[in-house]
Amino acid sequence: MTEKRVYTFGNGKAEGRADMRNLLGGKGANLAEMNLIGVPVPPGFTITTDVCNEYYAIGKERVVELLKDDVTKAVHHIETLMNSKFGDVENPLLVSVRSGARASMPGMMDTILNLGLNDEVVEGLTRKTGNARFAWDSYRRFVQMYGDVVLGMKPTNKDDIDPFEAIIEDVKKQKGVKLDNELEVEDLKELVRRFKEAVKAQTGKDFPTNSFDQLWGAICAVFDSWMNERAILYRKMEGIPAEWGTAVTVQAMVFGNMGETSATGVCFSRDAATGEDIFNGEYLINAQGEDVVAGIRTPQQITLEGSRRWAALAGIDEATRASKYPSMEEAMPAIYKELDSIQTKLENHYRDMQDMEFTVQEGKLWFLQTRNGKRTGAAMVKIAMDLLRQGMIDEKTAILRVEPNKLDELLHPVFDKTALANAKVIAKGLPASPGAACGRIVFFADDAAKWASDGHKVVMVRIETSPEDLAGMQVAEGILTARGGMTSHAAVVARGMGKCCVSGAGMLNINYKERTVEVDGLVLKEGDFISLNGTTGQVYEGQVTTKAAEVSGDFADLMDLCNKYTRLQVRTNADTPHDASVARNFGAVGIGLCRTEHMFFEGEKIKAMREMILAEDAEGRQKALEKILPYQKEDFKGIFRAMNGYPVTVRLLDPPLHEFVPHDEKGQQEMADAMHVSLDYIKKRVEALKEQNPMLGHRGCRLGNTYPEITQMQTRAILGAALELKKEGVVCRPEIMVPLTGILYEFEAQEKIIRAEANKLFSEMNESIEYKVGTMIEVPRAALTADRIASKAEFFSFGTNDLTQMTFGYSRDDIASFLPIYLEKKILKVDPFQVLDQNGVGQLVKMATEKGRSVREDLKCGICGEHGGEPSSVKFCHRVGLNYVSCSPYRVPIARLAAAQAAVEDTL
Amino acid sequence: MTEKRVYTFGNGKAEGRADMRNLLGGKGANLAEMNLIGVPVPPGFTITTDVCNEYYAIGKERVVELLKDDVTKAVHHIETLMNSKFGDVENPLLVSVRSGARASMPGMMDTILNLGLNDEVVEGLTRKTGNARFAWDSYRRFVQMYGDVVLGMKPTNKDDIDPFEAIIEDVKKQKGVKLDNELEVEDLKELVRRFKEAVKAQTGKDFPTNSFDQLWGAICAVFDSWMNERAILYRKMEGIPAEWGTAVTVQAMVFGNMGETSATGVCFSRDAATGEDIFNGEYLINAQGEDVVAGIRTPQQITLEGSRRWAALAGIDEATRASKYPSMEEAMPAIYKELDSIQTKLENHYRDMQDMEFTVQEGKLWFLQTRNGKRTGAAMVKIAMDLLRQGMIDEKTAILRVEPNKLDELLHPVFDKTALANAKVIAKGLPASPGAACGRIVFFADDAAKWASDGHKVVMVRIETSPEDLAGMQVAEGILTARGGMTSHAAVVARGMGKCCVSGAGMLNINYKERTVEVDGLVLKEGDFISLNGTTGQVYEGQVTTKAAEVSGDFADLMDLCNKYTRLQVRTNADTPHDASVARNFGAVGIGLCRTEHMFFEGEKIKAMREMILAEDAEGRQKALEKILPYQKEDFKGIFRAMNGYPVTVRLLDPPLHEFVPHDEKGQQEMADAMHVSLDYIKKRVEALKEQNPMLGHRGCRLGNTYPEITQMQTRAILGAALELKKEGVVCRPEIMVPLTGILYEFEAQEKIIRAEANKLFSEMNESIEYKVGTMIEVPRAALTADRIASKAEFFSFGTNDLTQMTFGYSRDDIASFLPIYLEKKILKVDPFQVLDQNGVGQLVKMATEKGRSVREDLKCGICGEHGGEPSSVKFCHRVGLNYVSCSPYRVPIARLAAAQAAVEDTL
Repeated sequence: MTEKRVYTFGNGKAEGRADMRNLLGGKGANLAEMNLIGVPVPPGFTITTDVCNEYYAIGKERVVELLKDDVTKAVHHIETLMNSKFGDVENPLLVSVRSGARASMPGMMDTILNLGLNDEVVEGLTRKTGNARFAWDSYRRFVQMYGDVVLGMKPTNKDDIDPFEAIIEDVKKQKGVKLDNELEVEDLKELVRRFKEAVKAQTGKDFPTNSFDQLWGAICAVFDSWMNERAILYRKMEGIPAEWGTAVTVQAMVFGNMGETSATGVCFSRDAATGEDIFNGEYLINAQGEDVVAGIRTPQQITLEGSRRWAALAGIDEATRASKYPSMEEAMPAIYKELDSIQTKLENHYRDMQDMEFTVQEGKLWFLQTRNGKRTGAAMVKIAMDLLRQGMIDEKTAILRVEPNKLDELLHPVFDKTALANAKVIAKGLPASPGAACGRIVFFADDAAKWASDGHKVVMVRIETSPEDLAGMQVAEGILTARGGMTSHAAVVARGMGKCCVSGAGMLNINYKERTVEVDGLVLKEGDFISLNGTTGQVYEGQVTTKAAEVSGDFADLMDLCNKYTRLQVRTNADTPHDASVARNFGAVGIGLCRTEHMFFEGEKIKAMREMILAEDAEGRQKALEKILPYQKEDFKGIFRAMNGYPVTVRLLDPPLHEFVPHDEKGQQEMADAMHVSLDYIKKRVEALKEQNPMLGHRGCRLGNTYPEITQMQTRAILGAALELKKEGVVCRPEIMVPLTGILYEFEAQEKIIRAEANKLFSEMNESIEYKVGTMIEVPRAALTADRIASKAEFFSFGTNDLTQMTFGYSRDDIASFLPIYLEKKILKVDPFQVLDQNGVGQLVKMATEKGRSVREDLKCGICGEHGGEPSSVKFCHRVGLNYVSCSPYRVPIARLAAAQAAVEDTL
Repeated sequence: MTEKRVYTFGNGKAEGRADMRNLLGGKGANLAEMNLIGVPVPPGFTITTDVCNEYYAIGKERVVELLKDDVTKAVHHIETLMNSKFGDVENPLLVSVRSGARASMPGMMDTILNLGLNDEVVEGLTRKTGNARFAWDSYRRFVQMYGDVVLGMKPTNKDDIDPFEAIIEDVKKQKGVKLDNELEVEDLKELVRRFKEAVKAQTGKDFPTNSFDQLWGAICAVFDSWMNERAILYRKMEGIPAEWGTAVTVQAMVFGNMGETSATGVCFSRDAATGEDIFNGEYLINAQGEDVVAGIRTPQQITLEGSRRWAALAGIDEATRASKYPSMEEAMPAIYKELDSIQTKLENHYRDMQDMEFTVQEGKLWFLQTRNGKRTGAAMVKIAMDLLRQGMIDEKTAILRVEPNKLDELLHPVFDKTALANAKVIAKGLPASPGAACGRIVFFADDAAKWASDGHKVVMVRIETSPEDLAGMQVAEGILTARGGMTSHAAVVARGMGKCCVSGAGMLNINYKERTVEVDGLVLKEGDFISLNGTTGQVYEGQVTTKAAEVSGDFADLMDLCNKYTRLQVRTNADTPHDASVARNFGAVGIGLCRTEHMFFEGEKIKAMREMILAEDAEGRQKALEKILPYQKEDFKGIFRAMNGYPVTVRLLDPPLHEFVPHDEKGQQEMADAMHVSLDYIKKRVEALKEQNPMLGHRGCRLGNTYPEITQMQTRAILGAALELKKEGVVCRPEIMVPLTGILYEFEAQEKIIRAEANKLFSEMNESIEYKVGTMIEVPRAALTADRIASKAEFFSFGTNDLTQMTFGYSRDDIASFLPIYLEKKILKVDPFQVLDQNGVGQLVKMATEKGRSVREDLKCGICGEHGGEPSSVKFCHRVGLNYVSCSPYRVPIARLAAAQAAVEDTL
């Protein structure tokens, strides 16, 4: 806890710096830094994130007490620089109060603007600016926001309209106008009066008139907002700890709504969707900042080039564009020039793409904020590689600049070109977040969650989105909105999530009540299919087929760069030749887990498998296994071919046999007929195979040790396939993996069977091949006794799915009954089946690796649970010295990047 | 591997010593030692146990090669001392070849006597001894044994009679005699001839005539017998590793069957059944040793006192006894005196009760063997305490002298006196192994196993037992035989197993074919009940009620002695006041595990419990819990009362809720009616509670954290009970235990609920009580992160049942599908649910204790799995520094003794 709680900035000076982000939040630190590098920023001060923690530790009253003097002094500092006075009727200073956490959390927390107004001050502001409309509009906005955020004026139930919006609608209806800005001063006064009435009625208290009372209310409301539901959900999604807290920045207001020489906007130093090195952004003349972000008015482009591109997409001709939607470059050329120069300065300073907010007040440009811009996965890759080529960052930084999980977007399927040719475009919007999406239409977050949990793919269709929609957006394949620009809530959040989004498709008529969307007479209902192309903004009726992405261009360059730094190899989990080739194309250098059980589930194979399981004795099993052998061999040949030259780890049969047998009478009768036994016999055998806890039952090497003939057959299939391919010149590197080992002797027994069968086969075929015999480490006891097991096993592969099940004592199949509550109560921060539990499961991985290598120095260790494709888990694997991770084909590039980052982080 | 393979002894000299037991086996080491202390022992030599391992490593041929010279020299050594020659026709030396492992394995392995005889040598022997009958009887015995053991002359199928026995029966029938010793020389010659014919017919080879060929065959057969089924089963039961191997002792034969001045016998320096300090034993005049052990002839007592006691029990009058069954003390007074003096010398030397074999050959006494005698649990306690009082051993030795598991016999129920008064005695035999047994009659080992596995208690009834019956004896409550004395196979093995046994009940007519036993006209069939008193030898018809044992006399003294040395405390697992009192009487100093779920299974309680589980929401659960609260409180009051002054650890609700709900439609309808909901609703709720792997599902503190109201109710019941009893002056020390913790936050969340409810209750009652909140450590992750968990938990209790399940990945319910095969293949040496797996599970226990105490120095750690009553596991708990073990009430004394032994072993 530092003693200093309040840091001021303004007029080229600041008490903070960019590197004090943890203490001042991203916004506070940047505002300080911008002052220091000469960017025009309205003066203000920041209350530290430590105070936020104090707030939750010792409570509101004591924190206000602690802050009182510092805040009063800091307000005087602003007054001095702005030459105005807080609460003064003649020359009033208005301020904004904003949150700002260490990590950016867009739209997550509440902000108050125009604070300092009351019935007297608004008159003073009117006199001072000579603009009654502006003053009263600011005042009604302030009362509305403050009422909402600080005084809790929410709709009383979910389906109700906002209480202030209801008053506005009422006044507009009386007046006979449609848009807010058609309201006149008297209407605005009426709004303020009725707003305050509503506050009194709903809260039982008068709206505060004293400006310092207002300020304290707002500061506390920002702290309170750190723990609101939306913020908690966002943090959970992004893995941000609650302890980071938010800072509060209080800053002099500047106004973009002071007439036609005023404006407000958001701009990016590069394109956040594609990554192109093009300055771009949106602005609105005579508007406040939230008008741009909230997507209520469709904003105009900042650059002429951008404006023309936008018009082309929206189907607006040049004359209309130039007159009705001029770019800032055209409308305010001098300001544009200053803006462009400062944005370049900022990007060069921060060496990354900047996301900036600005306001023009009566011809004077103020920067309100700059931060590293959120971007799509594609943009992230392109910007990193461009900055590298432009000499602005080095190779290591380029690698670290890309979030591995974001690559997922580049690996998502895109629309199949031929399918697209036949698809019917029904609407066009802005290409707000790239990729292809196809799913059933839903309109509300709740419904999205329900449909998705029922296994449907959904596309969320909204007039516009708000933070309340977050949970729905999270589960949707894509988002389509009728209103809002490239920086609307929907667009920003969708890009953050890597979801496809088309925004501002104004031709859509969305009816929430009927749950329909109408366009040109075509009515689509909830549940109907719709397809979106977030890269072009096109919207298609029905389902459009998609196809796999590939690694090329900047993405391929990035992957090459990764290879230069990485130590940890990336293999894939693949059970078919198709999966194996996909993974090879994504750069996998082998198969870390080839499950053999999936091979049994078709036609004749499953029948032979069932015969084997249901046989009365070893002889019957033997007979059935002989039928399976040729199928298995063919399967392995396909996989070895696809992995020519690379190692392939084949896991012996693992699941409980009960999974394979027919549970319906028809299937049982079929088996009875095929095996010439009674239905009753089959029923009894099936019943006998049932287990109380199959996860902890007769499976893994317990099968191979009780039915050695299975291990023999599989050994013969694997090595037989390899020997046959050897003749064709295919290089096979088989690694036979024993599953579920818990005891050295279990492994030994299996190894003996494998080696004996191999030798038999080699002498039969008068030919041999090198192969390894190793084991899964997925039972805690195996990890604990890894030194013993390594005395015999040639490699370890950590099966972290099962290891997580047994280390936590969680069954993946049953965890749904308590996991959501555990996440909600923060008993678990993340689902341990998604993110490797480094404290517990990871401890076993580390221990087993160390113990194993203590007896076999060159023991090859890998991981083949689903964690092998999760970046933080991959980095952990690097740190504990594993040789490789193995993950599903589509996660291979993600794992490769994470592995490279882990290696780079080692050198920092 | 020592270089010396063969150790000779004889004539007061020996190359071995008593402390070379591991190398020479118990028998070999003792024969050497007996020589060194001047006991008359026939000369011979011992081949080491290392050679046995060599035998299995490099094979028969190479081992024989390695031994050739040494064995030849050692045979010469015997020849010199016995003044005779091996294979010589004039002055032949005959030898015995016996096995001898480090631990005694009575009857488990094969022995050859009279080796060295052939058609010529037998004539020489006849000439030399002037006793053709003796020579030919020895010869026919030798051919019979050698044929059986070395040449594999077994019955070709199980139900067949032994091939040699068939020939003997045939010859006796021809001759018209009943007993073997009624056969004359010519008959014996006929037997030898036909035996050899049978050998040739069945094996295709002639019976070997060269004495060295015979010797090598016998030596190898002893080594082979180490791996026969019986030996493997016995080792499994006794936990003897295969690597110990057996030694082979070759020793000059002496003959107890050289007429009326010859005899053979077995004696004990104290009573092996009761422990009384009385010299006792049995002998037969003109017989070989195996005649006594095999129980074919009922032997006579060695001492006069013993003889009289025996006659009284057998209902034989003094005159008949003295004439027909005289004691050795009467029949051979001088030899008896020498025997008595040597037995005293041996007991004083070994400072333990001795089990000795001797032979008198024509008036000369030879000791063949001495070893620490097997004894019943009661005898073990009495002998240890007597030896202590007699100053022969010190306190620590006395503690170490008693095998903890043997105490089980003293804790077995005995017959209820009133039930016994009404029971009908149908037969009387020898009190061969004490205790009471009651069960259904079975005649064959197979049947015993089958009946027992079907859940029946069985008593095995046999004419006489042989090692083939072992598996049946193991599962039986008791053993009853019609033939055989106190040292018969049945008696010795039953005492070793701590089973009740009545032997030699000659009045029984057992018909294996009809599966009946008839006595005095009463016919009992297989499946009928019978009861045995192994302490008196009485046999009762039907079922006789039994009652619990108690700790008194020597047993109580031993327990007091244990308290003096022990550090590890012993608590009990008890869920009822009755169990709690039983455990208190056995010396438990608290309850380590009080499971609350068992309390729910009666009448109204289960109904309320089901209402709670099936309720739709928290409110419904709350209502049902209010009904349960008073029941729970009463349950806890009973338990606290029984444990007045001692700590009681109560575990919160643990099992999956599915276990409590009704699965039959009738029960479901009842609940529907009680809850005023539809049957369909109940069915759906029951279905929804089903889990794939309930062991890894929604249970333990996952219940308390998702349904906090359960934890609240239980906290209120526990502490409410304690507060109410406090008023009555009962001292309650409640310890509330959270089950299945895997994550610190899980425990924290429960602790918060418990403490809040406690504070609420305390302020309601205006009274408080001290209590602790701790956790089970039964999930591997809890052990791995024990340092974190100990930051909040006040105590740890290792639930090694679940910890074993999760560490191995074994479900106890499903393990039967592979455990038998794993034990058979020696993948597992023991069932890890019975004996704590020190390498794996134990490693976690040790780690968790150390980690826990690293943050909370005085963390109380205990174990409450079933391992808490298993001696080797208790000792492990002592070694890793646990504070206590908790076990079922009837294991408390066993755990106390094991704990004391562990403490004593620390000081050695």
